[in-house]
Amino acid sequence: MKQINFPNREDWNSLCLRPVQEQQELSNIIKEVFATVAREGDAGLLQYTQRYDHPEAVKIIDMPLDDSVTAIPAELKDAIRIAKNNISKFHSTQIERPVKTDTMPGVTCWRESRPIDRIGIYIPGGSAPLFSTVLMLAIPAQLAGCRDVILCTPPDRNGSINPAILYAANITGVSKVFAVGGAQAIAAMAIGTATIPRVDKIFGPGNQYVTAAKTYAQQLGTAIDMPAGPSEVLIIADEYADAAFVAADILSQAEHGADSQAILLSDNAIIINKVLFELNTQLSQLPRKAIAEQALNNSKAILLNNLDECIEFSNQYAPEHLIITTENAEQLAGKVSNAGSVFLGRYSCESAGDYASGPNHTLPTNGYARSYSGVSVDSFVKKITFQRITAEGISNIGPAIETLATAEGLIAHKEAVTIRLNALKNIKK
Amino acid sequence: MKQINFPNREDWNSLCLRPVQEQQELSNIIKEVFATVAREGDAGLLQYTQRYDHPEAVKIIDMPLDDSVTAIPAELKDAIRIAKNNISKFHSTQIERPVKTDTMPGVTCWRESRPIDRIGIYIPGGSAPLFSTVLMLAIPAQLAGCRDVILCTPPDRNGSINPAILYAANITGVSKVFAVGGAQAIAAMAIGTATIPRVDKIFGPGNQYVTAAKTYAQQLGTAIDMPAGPSEVLIIADEYADAAFVAADILSQAEHGADSQAILLSDNAIIINKVLFELNTQLSQLPRKAIAEQALNNSKAILLNNLDECIEFSNQYAPEHLIITTENAEQLAGKVSNAGSVFLGRYSCESAGDYASGPNHTLPTNGYARSYSGVSVDSFVKKITFQRITAEGISNIGPAIETLATAEGLIAHKEAVTIRLNALKNIKK
Repeated sequence: MKQINFPNREDWNSLCLRPVQEQQELSNIIKEVFATVAREGDAGLLQYTQRYDHPEAVKIIDMPLDDSVTAIPAELKDAIRIAKNNISKFHSTQIERPVKTDTMPGVTCWRESRPIDRIGIYIPGGSAPLFSTVLMLAIPAQLAGCRDVILCTPPDRNGSINPAILYAANITGVSKVFAVGGAQAIAAMAIGTATIPRVDKIFGPGNQYVTAAKTYAQQLGTAIDMPAGPSEVLIIADEYADAAFVAADILSQAEHGADSQAILLSDNAIIINKVLFELNTQLSQLPRKAIAEQALNNSKAILLNNLDECIEFSNQYAPEHLIITTENAEQLAGKVSNAGSVFLGRYSCESAGDYASGPNHTLPTNGYARSYSGVSVDSFVKKITFQRITAEGISNIGPAIETLATAEGLIAHKEAVTIRLNALKNIKK
Repeated sequence: MKQINFPNREDWNSLCLRPVQEQQELSNIIKEVFATVAREGDAGLLQYTQRYDHPEAVKIIDMPLDDSVTAIPAELKDAIRIAKNNISKFHSTQIERPVKTDTMPGVTCWRESRPIDRIGIYIPGGSAPLFSTVLMLAIPAQLAGCRDVILCTPPDRNGSINPAILYAANITGVSKVFAVGGAQAIAAMAIGTATIPRVDKIFGPGNQYVTAAKTYAQQLGTAIDMPAGPSEVLIIADEYADAAFVAADILSQAEHGADSQAILLSDNAIIINKVLFELNTQLSQLPRKAIAEQALNNSKAILLNNLDECIEFSNQYAPEHLIITTENAEQLAGKVSNAGSVFLGRYSCESAGDYASGPNHTLPTNGYARSYSGVSVDSFVKKITFQRITAEGISNIGPAIETLATAEGLIAHKEAVTIRLNALKNIKK
């Protein structure tokens, strides 16, 4: 971890830069995958699946399954159930009830949420079965009332899918699981094939091919959750922080990937030194030590003049995860303007939010927290506005509309009002 | 308007297609504009402005102005004030208050909205001064509490901006207006120059260059309101509808542009014929008759078996504007799943919503209503999640997190909990 003391304000901008991404030119590869899937449908999909994931056929699993089929330890089932309950409880608070407002007498307006019909969730393969991401995406989709939630994830060499992923999908209303991964899975969900239905919005993390495919799908008209980048945490710690806890949180971020980043801010040199010491001790114990070490090379411990300056820096950085472990954490929280999710106090570790406390773990990275929110029930609905205008209402508001439309030179807009006002005058006569 | 009676279900898909857009290959032009603005800053900007809009310098107007400076008729001022009041009243209902939830004892979670700092609004030039769009974008930005709202709009040959646009900007908290238009204005707001600040999110309509520039800005990391397409209305009318009103609504859509589209659905052949007759009569009176005629060529009147089928078709089409003028409009409204904004009953004309009733007029077109919402206060905030976990909380939730993290192979995530649980055990001893 790089140590920086009292940097000049002019240098904040460069300190807020993320590790440079290898921007490989993937667009030709991605376009070819989409073209193949569009042209050849399932045959094209199978071709890619055989090339990259090796099984002979695309396995389709119709849900719901009998719970006994998803063979995972009882302890893990219980833990997943606890996470599910907490995530459901928190996300339920995001469901919006319509509020009718009369903006003028006879002009009633309101907004109603309607689920996005067809949702596609992508879950990456690899060493770790990310069932937690299944929970984080399928639970709000279910709460929103989405009709059809499908899930694509790459199979192992036998075409099988990790049972923990199936278990999580099973208890969260996923309707079908397809053993398909990579850019070809995204293409299939964006375009549709005979077996994989086209969806309205695609969610979920993935490697650079998956990310590029999602961006391309968005350009072609399929909505996506948000732009993606490597995971990151910013921690603000004062003298009351526990250095060992802070180090553990930095490492839990660092083990995600070599391109992860952790930023430690403090107004206290001693706590920074303690954290750096603890990092060394704890790092040696980790199975993913090599990855974490690389991530720590991208990471910085920055000493600033006071906690307000720490918050200011954090707002400029706009972290995906922000941990505030200070005496007055809640008070500082009021000053946070840019962050994905905020963890307050010494016991609020990021892994709680990653798995089980309730808030979503699909969050804006790479500074996108300046303008994007994390995934929530909002991400799975459209908010449709409604208005009902009565005869009294159009009489009240009509003359203003006539004036406005005329001033914009849109006479048919004006006439749509005039014809109604005239009809009402005739009724009165 | 093309008349279609009882189409087969298999043909619905093609009936729902939008007029094909001339997809000119603009990306090279747009990339060059961005590169020039990035390299040369204000000088590059001025170069484009002189080429396309002709004035000698980029005019910058610092707000607020004295109301007397914005010389528009008192009647128009009053009408703009009425619209502002209604739009403010309706959008105020979208401001979300935090709700704290204990997902488990000692695990408190909530969500708070924070304004996006810097907003850029683009208002197109041309014959009509779209001050209504200034209201629709600047009012929710102001309600959200955005720190800095700037506005770019192309100047006339003297470098001037229509006073109605300035008036609307002035009363809605816009901080600066720049007389700059086109793709170069979008590039400037996305990149920043010495005079035009970089913004976090860009809103507003525009021609194909502006639209392509917004898409490119999004790829580079600046958020945008939503993907754009030509405006459209779908009207569901039964025997109780007023054919003259329906025709007027179709024409107010048709006058927007030659690529606009109107779809009329009914279960009643007589009302369709009456509307078509009324269209002919009313069309001849319109100043923008030529444009409206072209749009009507893209438009269709479709006779279906019943009103439920009309709603089903509408949901498949996913219209930007949906007018339901039937006996049981509110009841049908409950079945709407895809639409930008819905107008219920014979007096709820689209122009009311375009200008003054309250809901936003920046809405998803081109079928995007299947997955996108219109602009609202939500569009100007990030919703940040917060959590505070106490010692009791981590004791309750910790073991589940340990199990989940271990099952995903993320041992540092587990350790961040274990180290805290161990510390608590030591305290107890």
